[in-house]
Amino acid sequence: MTTAPTLLPQALLEAPLRKDSGAPPMQRQLHHRIKETILDGRLAPGSRLPGSRALAEALSISRNTVTAAYDLLAAEGYVEPDRQGTRVATLSRPPPRTERNPSPAPATALRLRHIQPSAPRSDASTTLRPGVPALSHFPLAAWRRAVDRAIRRGGPSALGYGDPLGEPVLRAAIARHLGVARGVRCEPAQVIITEGAQEALTLCVRLLTNPGDTAWVEDPGYRGAKAAMHAGDLHIAPMRIDADGLVVAESDWKSRPPHSPPRLIYSTPSHQYPTGAVLTVARRLELIAQARRHGAWIIEDDYDSEFRHAGESIGAMQGLVAQAPVLYVGTFSKTMFPSLRLGFLVLPAALLAALQTPLEEMLRGGHRYEQLALAEFIESGQFSRHLGRMRRLYRDRQQALREAMARHMQVPHTIEGGHCGLHLTVRLPAQYPDRKIAEAARRYGISPYPLSGFALQPGPEDNGLVLGYGNTSAELFEPLVRRLSQLARAAEIA
Amino acid sequence: MTTAPTLLPQALLEAPLRKDSGAPPMQRQLHHRIKETILDGRLAPGSRLPGSRALAEALSISRNTVTAAYDLLAAEGYVEPDRQGTRVATLSRPPPRTERNPSPAPATALRLRHIQPSAPRSDASTTLRPGVPALSHFPLAAWRRAVDRAIRRGGPSALGYGDPLGEPVLRAAIARHLGVARGVRCEPAQVIITEGAQEALTLCVRLLTNPGDTAWVEDPGYRGAKAAMHAGDLHIAPMRIDADGLVVAESDWKSRPPHSPPRLIYSTPSHQYPTGAVLTVARRLELIAQARRHGAWIIEDDYDSEFRHAGESIGAMQGLVAQAPVLYVGTFSKTMFPSLRLGFLVLPAALLAALQTPLEEMLRGGHRYEQLALAEFIESGQFSRHLGRMRRLYRDRQQALREAMARHMQVPHTIEGGHCGLHLTVRLPAQYPDRKIAEAARRYGISPYPLSGFALQPGPEDNGLVLGYGNTSAELFEPLVRRLSQLARAAEIA
Repeated sequence: MTTAPTLLPQALLEAPLRKDSGAPPMQRQLHHRIKETILDGRLAPGSRLPGSRALAEALSISRNTVTAAYDLLAAEGYVEPDRQGTRVATLSRPPPRTERNPSPAPATALRLRHIQPSAPRSDASTTLRPGVPALSHFPLAAWRRAVDRAIRRGGPSALGYGDPLGEPVLRAAIARHLGVARGVRCEPAQVIITEGAQEALTLCVRLLTNPGDTAWVEDPGYRGAKAAMHAGDLHIAPMRIDADGLVVAESDWKSRPPHSPPRLIYSTPSHQYPTGAVLTVARRLELIAQARRHGAWIIEDDYDSEFRHAGESIGAMQGLVAQAPVLYVGTFSKTMFPSLRLGFLVLPAALLAALQTPLEEMLRGGHRYEQLALAEFIESGQFSRHLGRMRRLYRDRQQALREAMARHMQVPHTIEGGHCGLHLTVRLPAQYPDRKIAEAARRYGISPYPLSGFALQPGPEDNGLVLGYGNTSAELFEPLVRRLSQLARAAEIA
Repeated sequence: MTTAPTLLPQALLEAPLRKDSGAPPMQRQLHHRIKETILDGRLAPGSRLPGSRALAEALSISRNTVTAAYDLLAAEGYVEPDRQGTRVATLSRPPPRTERNPSPAPATALRLRHIQPSAPRSDASTTLRPGVPALSHFPLAAWRRAVDRAIRRGGPSALGYGDPLGEPVLRAAIARHLGVARGVRCEPAQVIITEGAQEALTLCVRLLTNPGDTAWVEDPGYRGAKAAMHAGDLHIAPMRIDADGLVVAESDWKSRPPHSPPRLIYSTPSHQYPTGAVLTVARRLELIAQARRHGAWIIEDDYDSEFRHAGESIGAMQGLVAQAPVLYVGTFSKTMFPSLRLGFLVLPAALLAALQTPLEEMLRGGHRYEQLALAEFIESGQFSRHLGRMRRLYRDRQQALREAMARHMQVPHTIEGGHCGLHLTVRLPAQYPDRKIAEAARRYGISPYPLSGFALQPGPEDNGLVLGYGNTSAELFEPLVRRLSQLARAAEIA
């Protein structure tokens, strides 16, 4: 108390430091106060900080606290120790603390111009929403036990970085499952674990294309694929779909830039999303032959082929011929559950050597306990049993939806798809605009997708509703379809 | 048995179908056999399949099985039903089944040329490896219980797609934590949950840059940042580091393309990776002011600032001034554990409106139970207590490593860094080549990183070893350093 407080900068003393129980530590309070005083100019560059003993006494705190705060300020560059003590550093152009003018409207990446909002993803209703599996039928208790076991068995070593390409046991389990269930020809080393199908698509773009390359996409088709291609600055050429799937004419391969030759071809041959068309073998073979000839890669997104309702599963294009130029993409979002966010990419064997190092640098692995639990789920047979139960459930739900449509849909329509999966596509005449109906439906908590939203260049025939029956109980279909029918009639253009 | 088997194609009958207990279902066997017979040409286009009854009898299977197999083949396009029965379809150019010639060496993306292999990530040893936290000190049992609770509490609804930008409770918990611990100024809406820091970096590139834009990166610096920039086809300008961190001269802002103006600046101001330099406040303010003036965005990767060993944490650059043009990146890979693979990106408020829709289209959320468990871990105080324990552990380990270096490192060296984090950087004279030492060390299960591997343009001063002490017990440091010292001397260039 003997050192003259008049030597101390007033700003540092203007209020006592808080000593109540909820207060931040002394040292942090002091550090903050000095820093603010420097930044707002009350402690000018070149001026001296008080001696640590003096300040400690003035504030009734320990000298160590002051020294520690000064050390930190020195490490941060606010002050510089010299022979005489501690001096405020010269900060170049400290901006006024009252600055509230944001920078001029910030420019974002040009590619973002291509991204249009779809239906909100995060709202609560999954009623009739495509792509959502039957959440309440998932064996959650069994999964909880599997995760718990994986954490106990994996132990601390599975906390660390694992194989960036995925847990070997899971890659092996997927390779075996795909061979049996989908006729995919692959070794475990070709299977890369990804964050759902979306990261797999992103990897295809990053690994195999350059900005400005052409990609063919199904149109109407999966929006996420287009988003991945846009993110890679590809030129996107929309390709039409008919009842036999993706339409590629001989002339498409010959046409001039920007439409040809494609570097990447996005396809959903088992069950075209959203129309449900099955790509014929003739077209598959033709596509493979032409892709080989032109150095193109085919992405086969086999998104819901596990739920085949008519007969056996259709084999994957990947396994149709040896060494097909196909990158096979799959996800557990529908066979397990969406928030698991695990998918995979099966690389052609011919690409493995060239891509191993880039993949190890670009990927980080992770979610190892979930990967281990999933591997156990597959190997123990729980996965196949779950698929079998769900296949029956979805078949029944589809049948019930068809019956409800036949009885209660009072506007002209045709139903497409349904060989596989979790949705039906209902085409409507153009005078019933699909976006208007879908928007009205959302106000009733019903979430069909408008068919035209899947097309880059929607024609009049791309009008309709994509109805997901995965997570909606069959007894709701009658009232829901009655409601949709009313909304369609209300939306009719006279 | 009365229908003449001679009418049936021999290929379909050449062996009985398997009926043992491990055999695939009859229908699948038959489907496979017919398909193979068509593909290899033994059933020619236009030829007829046998009647279903006849084939069923010949093979001693049910007629329904045959019908189902035919239906599937028709759906796949291998056969076509007509009035007389079923005919093999004309497949365009079926490739010979014996084809074993791979396509000519496949071309991959040009950007992959920039990606060089680093030390193998997936090998077992984490001894002295930088960036790996103390795995055996993680409270795994508590985490297991937290995940279990999250699954039980989250219930089936958390199986579905959530907010693509992350679980709201986690975003709020992170915003609160960052405000207190790091002085970050943000609302929960600005916090985007990512797949570790790497996805956050990728998002910065995708959202804010166009191919060919310039990015400034610290050199030596984090390889993962460079990989993210290469993946976005940016022009990468390496910027030097000195004892005060990233060096940017006034002239750098004025120089001609391709070096200027940068669109993105990658920085680790709290603890430069790998040198450990702390960016001074003067340089921080200058960088912010110039970035504003030139429309550049600063990425602040605050990768290990939670483990500050000298005094209080240094506040984040993001919160240094209001509305700084800073994207703040963080990860739980070191504060929790690497395989959790959760990180975050704090967007500037000024960008939120423009980026909301693109982010919702590009991201899918996921890992919701892990996100919920982490939010609980933070809110309950377990996270802070764990950080406190680890901070003490790492401080002790760093001290022990310094002592071991002082005693046993028999070649000239200087030690840098150590204000924060999990590693020290040891510079060595150029006659002790770091890559050679690191390679030799790996044969002893020791995994330091060579300093020169962090530099795009390594100078003679970028020679040394980056030693991680996060996951290595202090009692091992003496023998490990003795070994490194031997290996350095053995590698010496005469």
